[in-house]
Amino acid sequence: MKYFTVGPSELYPIVPSKIKQALKDGVLSISHRARIFDELFESTTNNLRTLLSIPKKHSIFFLSSGTEGMERIIQNMAKQKTLHLVNGAFAKKFYQIALQLKKDPLKIEVEYGKSFDWKELSIPRSTELVCVTQNETSTGVAIDLKQIYTLKRKNPKVLFAVDVVSSIPYVTVDYSKIDAVFFSVQKGFGLPAGLGVLIVSPAAISKSLSLEKQYLSTGSYHSFSSLKKNADKYETPETPNILDIYLLNEVVKDMLNKGIDLMRKETEEKAKYIETFVEKSRELSYLAENSEIYSKTVHVLKVNGGAKQLMEHLKKHGFLISSGYGAMKNDYVRIANFPAHTIDNLEKLVDCLSSI
Amino acid sequence: MKYFTVGPSELYPIVPSKIKQALKDGVLSISHRARIFDELFESTTNNLRTLLSIPKKHSIFFLSSGTEGMERIIQNMAKQKTLHLVNGAFAKKFYQIALQLKKDPLKIEVEYGKSFDWKELSIPRSTELVCVTQNETSTGVAIDLKQIYTLKRKNPKVLFAVDVVSSIPYVTVDYSKIDAVFFSVQKGFGLPAGLGVLIVSPAAISKSLSLEKQYLSTGSYHSFSSLKKNADKYETPETPNILDIYLLNEVVKDMLNKGIDLMRKETEEKAKYIETFVEKSRELSYLAENSEIYSKTVHVLKVNGGAKQLMEHLKKHGFLISSGYGAMKNDYVRIANFPAHTIDNLEKLVDCLSSI
Repeated sequence: MKYFTVGPSELYPIVPSKIKQALKDGVLSISHRARIFDELFESTTNNLRTLLSIPKKHSIFFLSSGTEGMERIIQNMAKQKTLHLVNGAFAKKFYQIALQLKKDPLKIEVEYGKSFDWKELSIPRSTELVCVTQNETSTGVAIDLKQIYTLKRKNPKVLFAVDVVSSIPYVTVDYSKIDAVFFSVQKGFGLPAGLGVLIVSPAAISKSLSLEKQYLSTGSYHSFSSLKKNADKYETPETPNILDIYLLNEVVKDMLNKGIDLMRKETEEKAKYIETFVEKSRELSYLAENSEIYSKTVHVLKVNGGAKQLMEHLKKHGFLISSGYGAMKNDYVRIANFPAHTIDNLEKLVDCLSSI
Repeated sequence: MKYFTVGPSELYPIVPSKIKQALKDGVLSISHRARIFDELFESTTNNLRTLLSIPKKHSIFFLSSGTEGMERIIQNMAKQKTLHLVNGAFAKKFYQIALQLKKDPLKIEVEYGKSFDWKELSIPRSTELVCVTQNETSTGVAIDLKQIYTLKRKNPKVLFAVDVVSSIPYVTVDYSKIDAVFFSVQKGFGLPAGLGVLIVSPAAISKSLSLEKQYLSTGSYHSFSSLKKNADKYETPETPNILDIYLLNEVVKDMLNKGIDLMRKETEEKAKYIETFVEKSRELSYLAENSEIYSKTVHVLKVNGGAKQLMEHLKKHGFLISSGYGAMKNDYVRIANFPAHTIDNLEKLVDCLSSI
């Protein structure tokens, strides 16, 4: 079976052999307080820093999921006032987490399939933190980060947190211009689920410390101060998913060898291939309202004949794709385009789509 | 290398082959929203319920670590007043998490190596939640749960949460008599790290809901209400460590086949073997002050000649054990006795210990 699902998805090609290597080398039994783990932590964060051009001043933390990233950002980066740009289910979840944590969140919401009117968008004066879902996995709408950098330039004292769960490592992020970026590893990195990564700026750390000075809770073992104290000695506060950290390092090393520019170019070529096919199709059309906001990595498509029939047809031919999110389950499908998806398999998938 | 470390530790024997099976079967690519995952969740919790005799009314939640278990218990099971029985570093961590979450915790603390004076121990009237570390991984002191059941009987309205991180599945727990029990899988279950399990009573759920009704935060995606809403449909709020859930199910099935009584008997026999050796040794002695409170699964031993030399000697012969915790690093060692540790390997380890 080939998994074109939006995550968990197809494993990055080297993952099975690296898991077997990890078993041979006893990686699954090493202590998270042993030097060998510290070396793994250091190597993984160094390689990730190189691959994604993360500035030295920014901290890299390991969490357990993308969802945890949302919780820790809300706990540590705002006393009360968060603003959420909502154009899909995951942006809405970010907003709801702020509500559940008893912050005072506002949202600017647009219809699913649309993006924001950047010229009209203004940030209320008291806002401490703006939360953005750069690549909405529920709608397949991507936000051009230049719009976020412009907002940040206009509001330099406001912190910005960006969810790149389903676009990294394709999306190019200028980490120096935003304060928190997070993702999980079971999408673009093609790894088993159970690990999240959170990258924060010095300003994000300062904000968290200022909340602690006001005797406000920033969480416990995964407060930024606890995460940073441990990360500074290449450790995690708790016993983490060591296997996934090991595999992330191996995949990142492989991506460094291949070159991220080539990988991004391939992602764009594969995206173009899907877009061209959909444009000609009578059966399929994008949910996103225009091609400028199409996500390259998550293609959310309306299926005239209904999603179920199409998905069953593909499954018979050895392909799994995702159904539409939530209420869009019956009429939409979602197709992932991650580095683990080869052009060869994508062509076969598209052949299969056109044969229905 | 044989890992007698206190966790991560030796893998349960079937784990390597089951990981390879998972790779073959595409388990690492399945969606956490697919029916196949729901079936895995249902099967794993059913098998765990059978193995550990967990009542039907109790909920089983998947978290990412034992440490997360502490955080979620504190967030959901007390408005303010927690009481912590502290006789080691992990009980102290539980207390500190309550402080960090801005609760109003009290502690009853005894010297490391000692247990509590149960006859004298009284619980302040306003206490909502008592937190107990049944098996202190830092000191090797185990608490007889009968003492906790007695406390609960005397204080029926107080909730009790028990950390069994390093004693499960050896320890027999009467879940009907306590309100929260948690553990991680990289110790007694011999699995890769990155998964925690939390078992809660209906009273624990009610308490969490009552906090929510008072507009108090119980966390977000891992509040008990969110965990329960998802667990009721055999799902998790976030994308979890699916591989570890799969492996937990396989290990639990294997333990069911073997029989938990036999496994517990073997653990006691192996513990006796270590105890008998240490009693005769001039080099080693227990930190725990008397044999009644010795943990069967974590043996914390003072080394007259210093820990480092002993650990290096063992390492040369293919055995890894843990150093003492924190400030006890130089003078103590910790030896695990989990189901994955065979009597055969334990005998070799003890031979090696006596040859120094």
